[in-house]
Amino acid sequence: MIRVAVDALGGDSAPEEVVAGAAEAASPELQPILFGPAGLETHGLELVETTQEIAMDEKPAEAVRAKPDSSLVAACRAVGSGEADAVVSAGNTGAMLAACFLELRRLQGVSRPAIALVIPSEPRPSVLIDSGANADARPEHLLQFAHMGSVFSEEVLGVPDPQVRLLSIGEEPEKGNQLTLEAHELLAGAEGLNFAGNTESRDLLRGAADVVVCDGFTGNVALKLMEGTIKAVLDALREEITSSRRSRVGGLLVRPAARALRKRLDPETYGGAYLLGLRGLAVIAHGNSSRRAIANAIRLAARGVEHDVVGRLAQRLPERVLASARSDPGK
Amino acid sequence: MIRVAVDALGGDSAPEEVVAGAAEAASPELQPILFGPAGLETHGLELVETTQEIAMDEKPAEAVRAKPDSSLVAACRAVGSGEADAVVSAGNTGAMLAACFLELRRLQGVSRPAIALVIPSEPRPSVLIDSGANADARPEHLLQFAHMGSVFSEEVLGVPDPQVRLLSIGEEPEKGNQLTLEAHELLAGAEGLNFAGNTESRDLLRGAADVVVCDGFTGNVALKLMEGTIKAVLDALREEITSSRRSRVGGLLVRPAARALRKRLDPETYGGAYLLGLRGLAVIAHGNSSRRAIANAIRLAARGVEHDVVGRLAQRLPERVLASARSDPGK
Repeated sequence: MIRVAVDALGGDSAPEEVVAGAAEAASPELQPILFGPAGLETHGLELVETTQEIAMDEKPAEAVRAKPDSSLVAACRAVGSGEADAVVSAGNTGAMLAACFLELRRLQGVSRPAIALVIPSEPRPSVLIDSGANADARPEHLLQFAHMGSVFSEEVLGVPDPQVRLLSIGEEPEKGNQLTLEAHELLAGAEGLNFAGNTESRDLLRGAADVVVCDGFTGNVALKLMEGTIKAVLDALREEITSSRRSRVGGLLVRPAARALRKRLDPETYGGAYLLGLRGLAVIAHGNSSRRAIANAIRLAARGVEHDVVGRLAQRLPERVLASARSDPGK
Repeated sequence: MIRVAVDALGGDSAPEEVVAGAAEAASPELQPILFGPAGLETHGLELVETTQEIAMDEKPAEAVRAKPDSSLVAACRAVGSGEADAVVSAGNTGAMLAACFLELRRLQGVSRPAIALVIPSEPRPSVLIDSGANADARPEHLLQFAHMGSVFSEEVLGVPDPQVRLLSIGEEPEKGNQLTLEAHELLAGAEGLNFAGNTESRDLLRGAADVVVCDGFTGNVALKLMEGTIKAVLDALREEITSSRRSRVGGLLVRPAARALRKRLDPETYGGAYLLGLRGLAVIAHGNSSRRAIANAIRLAARGVEHDVVGRLAQRLPERVLASARSDPGK
């Protein structure tokens, strides 16, 4: 039985959609535990009562310090104390990062936890890391992201010797900004990493690599752009199709195909992303998550527990990462 | 009669596709002038013979210095000397930037020329600036990009009082990396700019703003990701459709609609992007340009001449930009 702590007040349509998603994800093997105010309609799920709430636009560090009994912080704490196996929140991402930092603490040798998002690329999924935890990062952080992503890909997605690429604006090593130029050198010289050079963003959905490494600003811009573009293209296609009688008829016939594609590419199908580099498992869900996205994020968290993501990272992150990280106290 | 200097050796499928594209663009009002080696098949177009060539992977600054009689540098020089009204190259982007810098020089007050790409967003096109000229930029550069993009949008695209937004990872001013946080402050305090705050990348194709400002690394990642995602989605849809008999029939009926969409979203429809901030008009075309893309890039250059992009920027870039730029010698 896997127990997942769920921040019932996190997200744009909390608590209703969050509770509904948790109820949908519940099974004999998976027990969501809601963290929220007394009196919350829980659909029969366990509720841990909390008295505070962190809003989407609050300043993360201050909010986490000021509200130790918020649903978000308390849910993270439950993982730190062992009462839950993982935590899921669709709330304030910055607050979630700060709370995880505080309540779960970092794995030895990790200076910056990073968000690992599984992208529905073809022919197989790839991992985009960091997709939003560190808006500013240094080259040595990108090296750590590469190692974390690599271990994750191998252990959780089952990819043998995963190929790692650096997201840049040209495939040649000398193309990029100051950060990627320096990171490229570090990655190219790193032992134990199957580094294959730079990749351009146009190949992200075409399986550019098993692991694509970037800073959190670039990764977050990339993931939101992919989502927005997929949606805009499918919406525009629907409009084009409904604009003539002939193509309307055709549209009915291709609808199942379009739906299958939409489902495969829909971010809600994954529902969330892992925050890697901590001593406990955390999943960050979309702020505008529907119940389906929340349910999938909770299932993602449960799969992470089954695969022992945290334990494997702790065990596998090579000594080299530890060494390079120890000289970097993080900030 | 508008004369456009065309680098016949620039791009992955040069010179054949470039010459063919130039021939396609030629009209009584538009005269492409090819720059390339003696003996080049020109389809009857004028040829200015050059003796050197800059390869796609050469180091930009060195190549431009070492090869003053390359097709790329000579084509830029023709604009500087007034023999041509604009220049188009699908060659080495860095070399094109360096050659333009050298041969066309910057407009007064501009420390960093930037690439302005017109995005096929709905309900109307928007301008993404910088989409690749400056991999590293400072906040004051982003302010200049905003002014250039704004004047461009108003004068060339005909948008009254264009709305400007800063590309970041959250709409709130306090979301972003160090660069966007500082740029946000500058933009918010700038006079004469209709600055409406941050925008997220998911809204780029949905007309997030008339002008979207970012550094060249982020902009280049964004534009290539948009292109790649549009292509991946349409390709995947075709695959889904051809996988069943029923949807194959539907596919035939929706094909015109899909084609119309593909054409609207296809980067080849624009063919290139303006390099703004120079005393002459330059268009940078895709490295993998087909003849159609080259023809469209040449037409884009001609439209820029008709609209007097350079003259209007020189006239309109407000004194404020000049003032802020004078304190920044550029680098």
